[in-house]
Amino acid sequence: MVDKFTFHMPTTVCFENGIAKKVKDYITGENVCIISDPFLFENGTAQALGAAMEGKKVVYFSRIEPNPSCESVDEAAACIREAKADCVIGLGGGSSLDVSKMAACLGDNEGSIYDYYGGGSKTLKKRKTQLICIPTTAGTGSEVTNVGVYTNKKAGIKMPMVNQEFWPDYALIDGELTVSLPPCVTASTGMDAFCHAIEAYWNKESQPVCDMLSMGALKSILEHIKTAYDHPDDLNARGAMITASLIAGISFSQTRTTGIHALSFPLTTEFGASHGTACSITLPAFIRKSREQAGEKMQQLCNYLGYPDAEALADGVEELMKSMGMPVRLSQIGVREENLTHIAQVGLSAAIIRLTPAVMNEQTVTELLRSIL
Amino acid sequence: MVDKFTFHMPTTVCFENGIAKKVKDYITGENVCIISDPFLFENGTAQALGAAMEGKKVVYFSRIEPNPSCESVDEAAACIREAKADCVIGLGGGSSLDVSKMAACLGDNEGSIYDYYGGGSKTLKKRKTQLICIPTTAGTGSEVTNVGVYTNKKAGIKMPMVNQEFWPDYALIDGELTVSLPPCVTASTGMDAFCHAIEAYWNKESQPVCDMLSMGALKSILEHIKTAYDHPDDLNARGAMITASLIAGISFSQTRTTGIHALSFPLTTEFGASHGTACSITLPAFIRKSREQAGEKMQQLCNYLGYPDAEALADGVEELMKSMGMPVRLSQIGVREENLTHIAQVGLSAAIIRLTPAVMNEQTVTELLRSIL
Repeated sequence: MVDKFTFHMPTTVCFENGIAKKVKDYITGENVCIISDPFLFENGTAQALGAAMEGKKVVYFSRIEPNPSCESVDEAAACIREAKADCVIGLGGGSSLDVSKMAACLGDNEGSIYDYYGGGSKTLKKRKTQLICIPTTAGTGSEVTNVGVYTNKKAGIKMPMVNQEFWPDYALIDGELTVSLPPCVTASTGMDAFCHAIEAYWNKESQPVCDMLSMGALKSILEHIKTAYDHPDDLNARGAMITASLIAGISFSQTRTTGIHALSFPLTTEFGASHGTACSITLPAFIRKSREQAGEKMQQLCNYLGYPDAEALADGVEELMKSMGMPVRLSQIGVREENLTHIAQVGLSAAIIRLTPAVMNEQTVTELLRSIL
Repeated sequence: MVDKFTFHMPTTVCFENGIAKKVKDYITGENVCIISDPFLFENGTAQALGAAMEGKKVVYFSRIEPNPSCESVDEAAACIREAKADCVIGLGGGSSLDVSKMAACLGDNEGSIYDYYGGGSKTLKKRKTQLICIPTTAGTGSEVTNVGVYTNKKAGIKMPMVNQEFWPDYALIDGELTVSLPPCVTASTGMDAFCHAIEAYWNKESQPVCDMLSMGALKSILEHIKTAYDHPDDLNARGAMITASLIAGISFSQTRTTGIHALSFPLTTEFGASHGTACSITLPAFIRKSREQAGEKMQQLCNYLGYPDAEALADGVEELMKSMGMPVRLSQIGVREENLTHIAQVGLSAAIIRLTPAVMNEQTVTELLRSIL
């Protein structure tokens, strides 16, 4: 037992395949701004959601890029203010959801995100604009966290912002929205959810509520990810995956993540790997490493998941990733021996790396990276 | 996978052995009303909590009886109104916590509980009075539910009331408060928590978030209840038990309970069994019965808990109860053959009995009761 913990996740979660078509039942306002990315606008997903809100005035902001910048947040906020939106809907992967959180807050506050984040000293007042998050990938978990990750171009870094006003009022979880995901996105986002769950589980700030949620999410991902990858239309697998991603999200919303996510930041910003790939590429190595300080707990997890030990789990995860065409060596995404120290240094600058159940310093992290070069 | 589910539990949970001494950190108001029972007032637990609020004006309402009546709720509300309390603290078992929920609401609303419940048609407006629940037993789970159970003397029945204003703002979970529980109360309240967890798990409205929470709570109770019973001062066991009770509470707050709780009502009101005893006395029989419609799921649970099958789990639970001096036959609490049909009829009048994963009618329920006479 840990000595102390808290649990607080006030978002109302509603799961049902097809629930996005009922979005109107959850909207209290009249003027809606749907925040999504160009892909979801071009393929009509955003408009289909808007069409399900008959009688509401709907505007679309669809310029969210991967690893969204503070400038995108400010542009989305300008759109919300101009439309006098009293309901903001984030629709998409983590990028759209994260932007919707801060942009909805800026609908009720003056100024730019830079006034509140990355050196800004203002405090967000209580959000009145309704915030509904609808994930279209089974990976982010952002729909049930109070965190947004933004790329601060001024400082040249990707940095999380945590705020109590960021908890969505509703998270609508709809497996149907994920059937059109390309298999490679199913794989990388699904393995991102796996990382969320296992990082919450072995976290130095892990706690019993989240331990159980993580175990369930991990088991479900192992059971369903390959089916969702091989059979994109399998609604049972899609529902199970987006639910597992949700549960993993609740779990890491309480504990934060660890070394995997810390090291993913430079792998994404400097080597262009997608977030899910950047995370999962170090996952097997971290599973092996986690035995250092979480050996007994990892063994309990392995027993539950049906693996003899953490080594076997790491091997199994690596084979699973390979079977979905995912890179498992850093050299596959362009990393070279001479980059390792720098990646380790950037990863070590993220506070969450201290939550890893192993000694994390330049030497140990570089060694871990070298083991998967 | 279920077709649809929701999850909403907005209470902020804080666990730490000794946290009750820090209660002041959680209070936003100035005038506090502590609602507890005569036992907690006489043994000084309520006053110790009040003493930890230096600078606040504190009044005590300590007349909560087991299976609290609507009249007690109204008396507590009168105390809150007279003291102009802006913070209500429920301290105790389920009775005190349940009363604190409705009484806090009546601090912001006019009239009696009967205006809002049991035929009353008024609607509670948004609660402004802060509500903090601090359980002193490891069993109720009431600290993380939006339900209060009150005995409606006018109608002569014990009936639950569900309201969104009943979610406490904070649930402070402190294992130290349970070290003075008599062993028989440790046993009966702990087995009540076991029932909450397993009834959420096999519930016809079960869902994946709560399934995982239930599994964890069940395992932890099986591991720690006998230690807490044999060694009341074991703070590790006490912390684990009150945490398991909390987790079971979160779980059944989403699903409600089933036949065990439905049948407990007449066993309590007509045969005087404590709530925990009235629930757990039918637990082994319901474990056996649950295989009828939840066979595969129960087998998965048994695998996790280390039992070969549900029959073995039922036997193990029965032995555990006997080892703690708990009755396992209805005749031990004064029930006779001629009472069975009536008990079944009263149980069947509770809506929750339909959530049991088995055919529940006068014949099957009477048979179940006869099997443990």
